[in-house]
Amino acid sequence: MSAAVRHRLDALAARFGLELRGDGAREIAGVGTLAEAGPAQLGFLANPRYAAQLAATRAGAVVLRAEHAALCPVPALIAADPYVAYAKIAALFETLPAAAPGVHPSAVVAAGARVAPTASVGPLCVIEDGAAIEDGAVLGPHCVIGPDCTVGAQSRLVARVTLVARVTLGKRVLVHPGAVLGADGFGLAFERDHWIKVPQLGGVRIGDDCEIGANTTIDRGALDDTVLEEDVRLDNQIQIAHNVKIGAHTALAGCAAVAGSAKIGRHCLIGGGAGILGHLEVADRVTITAMSLVTHSIREPGEYSSGTPLEPNRRWRRNAARIRHLDELARRVAALEKDKHDE
Amino acid sequence: MSAAVRHRLDALAARFGLELRGDGAREIAGVGTLAEAGPAQLGFLANPRYAAQLAATRAGAVVLRAEHAALCPVPALIAADPYVAYAKIAALFETLPAAAPGVHPSAVVAAGARVAPTASVGPLCVIEDGAAIEDGAVLGPHCVIGPDCTVGAQSRLVARVTLVARVTLGKRVLVHPGAVLGADGFGLAFERDHWIKVPQLGGVRIGDDCEIGANTTIDRGALDDTVLEEDVRLDNQIQIAHNVKIGAHTALAGCAAVAGSAKIGRHCLIGGGAGILGHLEVADRVTITAMSLVTHSIREPGEYSSGTPLEPNRRWRRNAARIRHLDELARRVAALEKDKHDE
Amino acid sequence: MSAAVRHRLDALAARFGLELRGDGAREIAGVGTLAEAGPAQLGFLANPRYAAQLAATRAGAVVLRAEHAALCPVPALIAADPYVAYAKIAALFETLPAAAPGVHPSAVVAAGARVAPTASVGPLCVIEDGAAIEDGAVLGPHCVIGPDCTVGAQSRLVARVTLVARVTLGKRVLVHPGAVLGADGFGLAFERDHWIKVPQLGGVRIGDDCEIGANTTIDRGALDDTVLEEDVRLDNQIQIAHNVKIGAHTALAGCAAVAGSAKIGRHCLIGGGAGILGHLEVADRVTITAMSLVTHSIREPGEYSSGTPLEPNRRWRRNAARIRHLDELARRVAALEKDKHDE
Repeated sequence: MSAAVRHRLDALAARFGLELRGDGAREIAGVGTLAEAGPAQLGFLANPRYAAQLAATRAGAVVLRAEHAALCPVPALIAADPYVAYAKIAALFETLPAAAPGVHPSAVVAAGARVAPTASVGPLCVIEDGAAIEDGAVLGPHCVIGPDCTVGAQSRLVARVTLVARVTLGKRVLVHPGAVLGADGFGLAFERDHWIKVPQLGGVRIGDDCEIGANTTIDRGALDDTVLEEDVRLDNQIQIAHNVKIGAHTALAGCAAVAGSAKIGRHCLIGGGAGILGHLEVADRVTITAMSLVTHSIREPGEYSSGTPLEPNRRWRRNAARIRHLDELARRVAALEKDKHDE
Repeated sequence: MSAAVRHRLDALAARFGLELRGDGAREIAGVGTLAEAGPAQLGFLANPRYAAQLAATRAGAVVLRAEHAALCPVPALIAADPYVAYAKIAALFETLPAAAPGVHPSAVVAAGARVAPTASVGPLCVIEDGAAIEDGAVLGPHCVIGPDCTVGAQSRLVARVTLVARVTLGKRVLVHPGAVLGADGFGLAFERDHWIKVPQLGGVRIGDDCEIGANTTIDRGALDDTVLEEDVRLDNQIQIAHNVKIGAHTALAGCAAVAGSAKIGRHCLIGGGAGILGHLEVADRVTITAMSLVTHSIREPGEYSSGTPLEPNRRWRRNAARIRHLDELARRVAALEKDKHDE
Repeated sequence: MSAAVRHRLDALAARFGLELRGDGAREIAGVGTLAEAGPAQLGFLANPRYAAQLAATRAGAVVLRAEHAALCPVPALIAADPYVAYAKIAALFETLPAAAPGVHPSAVVAAGARVAPTASVGPLCVIEDGAAIEDGAVLGPHCVIGPDCTVGAQSRLVARVTLVARVTLGKRVLVHPGAVLGADGFGLAFERDHWIKVPQLGGVRIGDDCEIGANTTIDRGALDDTVLEEDVRLDNQIQIAHNVKIGAHTALAGCAAVAGSAKIGRHCLIGGGAGILGHLEVADRVTITAMSLVTHSIREPGEYSSGTPLEPNRRWRRNAARIRHLDELARRVAALEKDKHDE
């Protein structure tokens, strides 16, 4: 973080439409947690769970909701959603590595590739024939951009991102290291005694403002494209199979996986490690809790779960053994009820 | 897809042993879904679920089973297995990036490495001493081939594949970007208060015609090798631990994981996200459904599952709470039965 | 493995504090399993399950516990913990690729980076401004070391490791290919109808003697750092989210995942594919079995599990259907008990 950037509280209030309480001339040089922020830093109170920390904060100022302002011992910026306001202010203090326009001399750019003059191509990138890097896009070191791939304007590939073939990224897409987009979908046909590979002739289309986590994989479609609409957010190590469609503003947490041709709605939240089987549809505004498995289409918004509670192993073993005989247990209960009824 | 490639229906029928119905002179320039294919494209009907789309198809021709031919409004190619026939025909329209023999000038090839003159080594590859790249093998950009590794004839490493050490790929092996083969197995011994690393002195052997997905990892063995027999198919983000053996023609879907020294049979199907514990054996022709955990050896072919059904969260919470007391519930039912019997 | 290295049994006994039984002049040139080791190799018997193999071993010598020595047909090295002794002896036969000090001419090292003269930087590495590579550290090919990252003394990045920004590795840290440390944590705030990215201003700190598996990801913190204390061992494809803290000597098996701000104790064992939700605490010396999900803090040491047993699919379906009605079943049992009591 650069030590040089400083912002007055009154300027921050004006810029982000917040109400200021206290000394507007106070300068802020960074952000921190309520517990750790010092006098030159801005803290925030978004989760009421941390309200008890407010009285003792040493922060220079705090972003919070109006209801907490009375308890704040330092200047405050009042926001309807303090976490959103904090996110915007914090962005002022984020310093990204400089990315000068131009192609690093160590990069290998094919004659048939097109790189906008305002784009930045980092060391040891490989850009193949038919690829396009648009205005202001930034490729960190070690990216590989395959044939018929486009990196949209202002997109940023942090480092070591691979776009294999027929991948189109929209504008302002952010892709983290190790992500692989556009690898072959897993298409196989079984002939007598061995597998035949089914060619994967489609592509991948990623909408504007999407974010793709580290080591996440998104395969290209068999015939149609695999599609993420705008503002889809994927955490690390997520697997998106061929022909999947994900609606706008949906977010998937780490290690979630979506099988082929599943269609996920808009504004969904998919928990970490959750799985969605192939050829299903999930409605808009569905939440799937962590490590749940979706085995059938979901038509209604709401929260869905599978799995069993964590227990001490000895206790778990006893209960798990009973699950193996649950159908029989249910029949035995029905028999008791019938006996009762017949008495 | 190249627009230049065109195939007459009668030529396709002859080449793949299919029965032609309709105009054999019709030319096909690509493939598509029944719903989307246009007059120059071949559609296919493999899953009877899509039979309703047949009447309205605008495809130039359709591959299907004899039983559906009567309903087909356009010329047809009759196949016993339309998906297999489609896969073979579609391959004619797949255009892979050209890979000229030779070593790209930006690659770093050690003096003690051996690269066949017909092999192609892409930009910025690193090939270390003792590695061998055999006839017609293709290494895309950014591959790293470590000591004592062999890439067999006609194998293809799409891009950014790492073979760490003592990895042998058979012929026609296809490896997708980000895969890491031959990293240290996870071997640790605990001495008093800290871990001691157990050297991983084995290797990895991959049989002919295997496919390894993007960001999949296959560790090398502790003493023996980790082995995939021929025609094993691994999807993306799969983890294969040290000393695992996987039988021929077995396929694992995305995010499956196999722990150390497990032995999986031939012709198995392991679902996405499934886990197999270490030192187990799984018989031939076993299917494990998605996200199931195999905790004991499986001796009989068949389909196996674990896990609980997805439910609306509120309902799930009520049922899950009961699982914690299932053993007690079963005892209560037994007590009721005993009372009944004693009456 | 080098054929040249040979060690006399009496020298091994003296070096590692083991008791020798039999011919101390015998030379050992490698290690192997009891079943496979030949006369020039050392076998070991750590797991009593393999005791039956001892009588028939053709190994040159065997490391084992005193209680098994009488049954050993060849010279023996007696150890309190044969697996630990074996690990140390086996390390003598492990040959790592030579890593000469200096920077490979194909590497791209920024003017503002600092590389110790005794460090080794492999082909096609990229080291950015503000990065430091300390004494004796070894970077294999294709590593990317971003701004404000430090690779501690004697650490080894095998190949293709990415440290994105603000990552500090301690001494003797081993990182396997494809690992990504210091990518943005997954921080999002939802504003009206779209996501706002929350800047990730913290870093990652990895203690001495940690090991990080292939394709594992460790995100940097939002404000504080993500921290692994010393001697933490991570297998492949593990996901560690922002602000996680992991105590010393804890080991996580492949594909485990820890969500944001979770705090895991020391000497824990986290099974393969297990998940730990965010903002939880797990006490010291906790074991979580494979594919379990930790949904609440764990205050007591011990072993914990969730999930259901694997069953043949048809049987599983019947039992799983009953789980959906388990709450109702429990109520029905309570009703029967009440009836009984009321009689």
